[in-house]
Amino acid sequence: YKARGRKPWKLILQIVKIAVVTIQLVSFGLSNQMVVQFKEENLMAFRHLFLKSFRDSSTDTYSIYTQHDVYTHIAFTVKQFLMLPSITVGNHQYEKEGDVYTPLTICQQFYRNGSISPANETFDIDAQVDEGDCLQIYPVPPFSPLTTNPLNFTLHFERLLTVTVNFTLKAINLETVEYHELPDCYVFDIMITFDNKAHSGRITIDLDNDVHIYECRDWSVTDASPRNMYMLVLFDVIVILILMLSLLLCARSVKAGVHLQFEYTEFFSIHHGKHVSFSDRMEFINGWYILIIVSDVLTISGSLLKIIIQLKAVASYDLCSILLGTGTMLVWIGVLRYMGYFKKYNILIITLRAALPNVIRFTCCAAMIYLGYCFCGWIVLGPYHTKFRTLNVVSESLFSLINGDDMFATFKNMQHKSDVVWLFSRLYLYTFVSLFIYMVLSLFITLITDTYDTIKHQQLDGEPVSDLQA
Amino acid sequence: YKARGRKPWKLILQIVKIAVVTIQLVSFGLSNQMVVQFKEENLMAFRHLFLKSFRDSSTDTYSIYTQHDVYTHIAFTVKQFLMLPSITVGNHQYEKEGDVYTPLTICQQFYRNGSISPANETFDIDAQVDEGDCLQIYPVPPFSPLTTNPLNFTLHFERLLTVTVNFTLKAINLETVEYHELPDCYVFDIMITFDNKAHSGRITIDLDNDVHIYECRDWSVTDASPRNMYMLVLFDVIVILILMLSLLLCARSVKAGVHLQFEYTEFFSIHHGKHVSFSDRMEFINGWYILIIVSDVLTISGSLLKIIIQLKAVASYDLCSILLGTGTMLVWIGVLRYMGYFKKYNILIITLRAALPNVIRFTCCAAMIYLGYCFCGWIVLGPYHTKFRTLNVVSESLFSLINGDDMFATFKNMQHKSDVVWLFSRLYLYTFVSLFIYMVLSLFITLITDTYDTIKHQQLDGEPVSDLQA
Amino acid sequence: YKARGRKPWKLILQIVKIAVVTIQLVSFGLSNQMVVQFKEENLMAFRHLFLKSFRDSSTDTYSIYTQHDVYTHIAFTVKQFLMLPSITVGNHQYEKEGDVYTPLTICQQFYRNGSISPANETFDIDAQVDEGDCLQIYPVPPFSPLTTNPLNFTLHFERLLTVTVNFTLKAINLETVEYHELPDCYVFDIMITFDNKAHSGRITIDLDNDVHIYECRDWSVTDASPRNMYMLVLFDVIVILILMLSLLLCARSVKAGVHLQFEYTEFFSIHHGKHVSFSDRMEFINGWYILIIVSDVLTISGSLLKIIIQLKAVASYDLCSILLGTGTMLVWIGVLRYMGYFKKYNILIITLRAALPNVIRFTCCAAMIYLGYCFCGWIVLGPYHTKFRTLNVVSESLFSLINGDDMFATFKNMQHKSDVVWLFSRLYLYTFVSLFIYMVLSLFITLITDTYDTIKHQQLDGEPVSDLQA
Amino acid sequence: YKARGRKPWKLILQIVKIAVVTIQLVSFGLSNQMVVQFKEENLMAFRHLFLKSFRDSSTDTYSIYTQHDVYTHIAFTVKQFLMLPSITVGNHQYEKEGDVYTPLTICQQFYRNGSISPANETFDIDAQVDEGDCLQIYPVPPFSPLTTNPLNFTLHFERLLTVTVNFTLKAINLETVEYHELPDCYVFDIMITFDNKAHSGRITIDLDNDVHIYECRDWSVTDASPRNMYMLVLFDVIVILILMLSLLLCARSVKAGVHLQFEYTEFFSIHHGKHVSFSDRMEFINGWYILIIVSDVLTISGSLLKIIIQLKAVASYDLCSILLGTGTMLVWIGVLRYMGYFKKYNILIITLRAALPNVIRFTCCAAMIYLGYCFCGWIVLGPYHTKFRTLNVVSESLFSLINGDDMFATFKNMQHKSDVVWLFSRLYLYTFVSLFIYMVLSLFITLITDTYDTIKHQQLDGEPVSDLQA
Repeated sequence: YKARGRKPWKLILQIVKIAVVTIQLVSFGLSNQMVVQFKEENLMAFRHLFLKSFRDSSTDTYSIYTQHDVYTHIAFTVKQFLMLPSITVGNHQYEKEGDVYTPLTICQQFYRNGSISPANETFDIDAQVDEGDCLQIYPVPPFSPLTTNPLNFTLHFERLLTVTVNFTLKAINLETVEYHELPDCYVFDIMITFDNKAHSGRITIDLDNDVHIYECRDWSVTDASPRNMYMLVLFDVIVILILMLSLLLCARSVKAGVHLQFEYTEFFSIHHGKHVSFSDRMEFINGWYILIIVSDVLTISGSLLKIIIQLKAVASYDLCSILLGTGTMLVWIGVLRYMGYFKKYNILIITLRAALPNVIRFTCCAAMIYLGYCFCGWIVLGPYHTKFRTLNVVSESLFSLINGDDMFATFKNMQHKSDVVWLFSRLYLYTFVSLFIYMVLSLFITLITDTYDTIKHQQLDGEPVSDLQA
Repeated sequence: YKARGRKPWKLILQIVKIAVVTIQLVSFGLSNQMVVQFKEENLMAFRHLFLKSFRDSSTDTYSIYTQHDVYTHIAFTVKQFLMLPSITVGNHQYEKEGDVYTPLTICQQFYRNGSISPANETFDIDAQVDEGDCLQIYPVPPFSPLTTNPLNFTLHFERLLTVTVNFTLKAINLETVEYHELPDCYVFDIMITFDNKAHSGRITIDLDNDVHIYECRDWSVTDASPRNMYMLVLFDVIVILILMLSLLLCARSVKAGVHLQFEYTEFFSIHHGKHVSFSDRMEFINGWYILIIVSDVLTISGSLLKIIIQLKAVASYDLCSILLGTGTMLVWIGVLRYMGYFKKYNILIITLRAALPNVIRFTCCAAMIYLGYCFCGWIVLGPYHTKFRTLNVVSESLFSLINGDDMFATFKNMQHKSDVVWLFSRLYLYTFVSLFIYMVLSLFITLITDTYDTIKHQQLDGEPVSDLQA
Repeated sequence: YKARGRKPWKLILQIVKIAVVTIQLVSFGLSNQMVVQFKEENLMAFRHLFLKSFRDSSTDTYSIYTQHDVYTHIAFTVKQFLMLPSITVGNHQYEKEGDVYTPLTICQQFYRNGSISPANETFDIDAQVDEGDCLQIYPVPPFSPLTTNPLNFTLHFERLLTVTVNFTLKAINLETVEYHELPDCYVFDIMITFDNKAHSGRITIDLDNDVHIYECRDWSVTDASPRNMYMLVLFDVIVILILMLSLLLCARSVKAGVHLQFEYTEFFSIHHGKHVSFSDRMEFINGWYILIIVSDVLTISGSLLKIIIQLKAVASYDLCSILLGTGTMLVWIGVLRYMGYFKKYNILIITLRAALPNVIRFTCCAAMIYLGYCFCGWIVLGPYHTKFRTLNVVSESLFSLINGDDMFATFKNMQHKSDVVWLFSRLYLYTFVSLFIYMVLSLFITLITDTYDTIKHQQLDGEPVSDLQA
Repeated sequence: YKARGRKPWKLILQIVKIAVVTIQLVSFGLSNQMVVQFKEENLMAFRHLFLKSFRDSSTDTYSIYTQHDVYTHIAFTVKQFLMLPSITVGNHQYEKEGDVYTPLTICQQFYRNGSISPANETFDIDAQVDEGDCLQIYPVPPFSPLTTNPLNFTLHFERLLTVTVNFTLKAINLETVEYHELPDCYVFDIMITFDNKAHSGRITIDLDNDVHIYECRDWSVTDASPRNMYMLVLFDVIVILILMLSLLLCARSVKAGVHLQFEYTEFFSIHHGKHVSFSDRMEFINGWYILIIVSDVLTISGSLLKIIIQLKAVASYDLCSILLGTGTMLVWIGVLRYMGYFKKYNILIITLRAALPNVIRFTCCAAMIYLGYCFCGWIVLGPYHTKFRTLNVVSESLFSLINGDDMFATFKNMQHKSDVVWLFSRLYLYTFVSLFIYMVLSLFITLITDTYDTIKHQQLDGEPVSDLQA
């Protein structure tokens, strides 16, 4: 069943497939790169424009601590918003609904009712959250800051949960003109959140934006052509067709294999009276075909999604990129199959495949110890080290430690508040690292070495035959 | 003595045990996470409120160098304290004793008496430390900064050891309302220390707080229920019962083993006249049972402590978390025992166990060299590199170096004051890294490989029998 | 054909070659070090002098966000330029053409024509880029800032692409006087670019300079001699001669080998009727000779280029350093050949050489998986992590991860915007690291181990003979 | 010659030796720690007091760029110096000579004579360096800043090489009073250097100090005793005596070995007529004894130096710590010898020792390639990456890369100026890392594995005997 005569066609098909899939992926990636960069630079510009004394390096600790600061920060944002046209160096403009510009909206969320008196250790809260009235500020030309009373606006800090400032800006990404493509129109829904949910004396400020991209309504660019959308879609369709063909051929092979397997099982149970083992049966179904089918299905759905995105601007970019990305990765891994035809390459691939079950088995054992360490580290060291705050982060940081991460920093940043915990942390880290790096990693190497030796000797002695091949 | 008939019950018990212990641990951890975060955010807010020009990144080097700065920093703290109600964005309030607010206290420690004249190289000091009078400042409504003479307060810097500013604030953690739990009341004992003990021209400032958490006296929250304390305690009791049962079963098994061992020893010394070797005797006592017993005892004491903490608010959270954490870790590691029943898993576990003595033995040898390097590095490089300041830190940094830490930074940060020391540091680091990474780590791998081979051949050839199994 | 009698001469020649080539390289490197440092310090000084509120640490994020900032930054640069003689602490001076100082030039690039209205989603752009008029500002002694209207200069931000500020300064590197060498004259063409191509609301500012170095026209230094150029050139010539000799000897050996090979092939095909295999034929052509020839050719061309550079100041320093550097590296690697004469060294070298094909073969297999991961990571994680922005960077960051880079940082910096992508990133990183560190790296070790064993047994059993040696 | 009867005495002596040597080292280290900290904190305080707008993080890039800055920085230093008594929070005072305070001295170094005109590309310099007149400023009580003309002081920046500001301060380390020890007196010779040697437009400022420590002349401390110097010296003497004894015993053993060897050689050449091989002869001289003798000699000289330091305050602390440190390290490594008596430990130690020659041999081979890469990296990448600036740094950074340093940072920080060099850097790094991590490190592991196997089989088969043991 390994007729060599049929191969060339399939091989050529696969090579073509790899080529077109990779080209498709790269073109998709490149076209997205510019969009991503424009979005990111705008977000950064908004942060610098609308947040008072914002500094690049301190993105994640941008927070304020006094009531006065809250008012001045809000006032600053409003002032910058009102003066935007004379400030910005980009081409940001207010959104218009009809003839009126859409306003900036300041809203606050607070507990409906409440008297909190920590001094007396008494409180009386209505857990219901009120939205309150929102303040709407319209930009009016000539654009200038409010000269009258700055903001008629009082915050009840005791009950305050969040203050949100919302507004919408529009912009056009002109950079594409340079590459003789049509510029897109962008709408940025900007939301600044002052978060006081913790009532811990610290209000964190966060600026985020939702971006909508669509074709501009009316445009004229000298010396630029509309994006060759149809060429792209055509290419995608070709990709899908090639993938379909590959899928079909593989499916036929698998089907033949399954068929053969049933016949063989029957033959065997009749003539030899023996039951065919599961692993022998699986021999008929080539794992590589399964891999190719999966990769084809993923890439086809990814390509379809991509066509839909390009035509109708339905945005589920993430899903599409995951489908295309995973598909392409599997296509590349599938190349290994054809390398297996060269004998010297084969032994390496076989070793990896043969070692896999043992490695997985061993990984299970190691995972038990690993999980034990995770739980223990989280509960004991969590309050004293940011790398042990949540279970997820613990797992990541331990995994990184095994693979040679900055260990000294982990040791050093452990807060030294309680001697017992400090001692425990030392014991914990030393034993964990020793156990995993010196014992577990070494055993991994041993497993691979052992498998390699076994396979090499098998190949030298003649492969031991299963019932099937006998 | 390996009757398979009894197993299922024990196995099910162990699985249940793992489940409930893990659930208990996770619930304990999650409930603590919010408290830890509230504490930490408050500490950060206090630092920003009460320390002048405090910046996040510079926590550990927050220090001042001039007399004027000391006065202004203290004045700033006092001003902020007096104005707190109109500044803070949280719900911090002063503590009240009766109707009077508890004051802020400024104390200084200094040598009782002394004239120090470095210029003449003479000094006359009374080593006794005086506490001096403490200045008490009461917050009086309407809360405003002192308008009269700012602070009638003189510091004798020559004799000054520390200035401490103490005050107490109260707050309520309202965040729990969101999760329909009752808020807790917090008391923060804040202590700001100006440390001049070194008299080196640099005063380091440190703000720290002690936190006490207790139930608020009087409360009313619409739409919230008191914490389901009793459910939690009930669950803990169930956990304890299950652990008791597991403990009992294991103890019985161990007891049976010990009994058998004694009988066997007797039988052997009578019939064969041979003395039974210690390792053969140990064969009767299953190491896994010991592990399970230890983990059960740890988890039971942890759970008991947890119940006490929840009922009476006796706070020894650290001990409890260490007990529970270590217990849970051992429970998870105990799972390996049941994996050993599958043959393919067994070889891996046996390899690890068999390699352990050799690895420990070798670790002892390596530790000698390691200790030699530690002492040598500490004494020679200590004054020139922060990573070699104390013996403990030297050990951590060398351990990290072996496991792939930032080596270049270690090289680079070595102060280049003396050529001899600089040369020595290069020699030291090169030889240490080469020796440990190239020789010692490689030998670890060899040890594991060797053990794996030995065990594999044993299993293929039939296990060599000890006297007992013969 | 391995006559030992001839060796000493060649060996001595090679040792001399290593010595002179290394000396030449080191002298070349040292003489360049001072120039590089002077250039770099000047660049840094220019940044501090001509960019407003420039700070060292923020080189790559130096950008501004408001129209007002653009004007003030340009005005600052002009002011500093005009006052330069009374500001700079170096010996920078304006360039002179005849008696007139060359001016500072401010140019702007913008789209020729355009009305952009994001609010209406309409735009009308002429993609042609206009250079506009350049503003030229002449420094006039006494050097003082402009007191009249600061800058008669308007920017149309909507259409603006870039603003460039150009000027030329001259300086003399006096540091060489200390080493009794003649100072060189430097011309710095400084270009400050305000880049608004993205129109994203953020203008990045970049200062760069072109440096030209030449001999000063007229000079007199007490107690200094002109650079001993001729000595250097003489030394280079000697180096070239030695390399020529080495090249000649190697070429002769190779030629003899090729000749022998043809004779042998003929002899074989006549007497044995067998075709000589390609690998047997290659045996005649010693790989080491090829290496030496390549290294000689590289070093000779490097030395020639160096002479040209020194004589005529034709600057292609990079090419010269690559030629010399690669040449020297190969010369050093060539030393391994002579180590092969000692038997114990030989086995190591042979192992490395013998393992190479297998390692390369395996690297190909691994590269397929690696490429798959690269493409997938780029397309999916690109928008969420700076380490996955471009294909090239993805490859570098994955390669670093395998070799123990900061893994936790990679995990942590992944933007958590979409849950699917976040989950995917975890899966991606965990599988990638596990696969490559635990499986692929282990297999590398196994390959080397296996080769070493094979070779050792061959040497013990007597080397298996090929047809040739039989 | 391995008489077991003699051992116990020696063993006990060695254990005592380890104990006392380690105690001596630790006490030496601890007593120094406080001194080092005091020095360092003072240096930091001086930097903050005397350097204008100095910030902790920017130690190595503290530099200024304008003439005005130079004047203001010098004026600031002078002002702070004059007002020191009312500023400092430590007990710093001016030095007194007789009744007069020693002044602050401002000196400048410049080329004697010179007209530099980069614009005309002409210069005329006298390479002789003039010291010029130094300005002396005396602190006069009441200490206040200069109110008259700030500083009558002109700098010729064109010819200026350095400006140095020198002054001397005294202080007493009072912290020791806490530990009931006598305080020491410190003299700080502070030197601030404005370095304009490069004339690159950037003046780097550096503050450094020389510290002299001696006993204060006149002191009285209630409740403190003079340092128990004599006890320390006594302990040192005991250490020396024990080491002498150990040295003596070892020397005797070695001497006996040498004697035996000569007899044996003679016996052999007479009776067997065979020449004794060098390695057989070396068998007589136990390597461990050599190690112990070296460690003893080092520690004895270290202890003697320590006594001298303690008695006469001759300060060569670095040499003393290197001697003591290395000695102690070797003493600890010597422990391995006694571990060799246990058989299971022995195999590990023997493996390490047996693998050493092969490892060193292989390291030589690897070093050739390594050196090649070093030279090549230095010459080509030096101008574009700080990690490749000097040969020494190149070696360190490559060594770190092999052992898992931050590789991505190395990739990323490569300046992208020339495409050829950029491409070269990628090729360079990829090949270097692959070659060394995948091939060289793997071969190390193989070497150790192989040696371990060899030794294990030897031990199982009975050790092969040399002529001597036959």
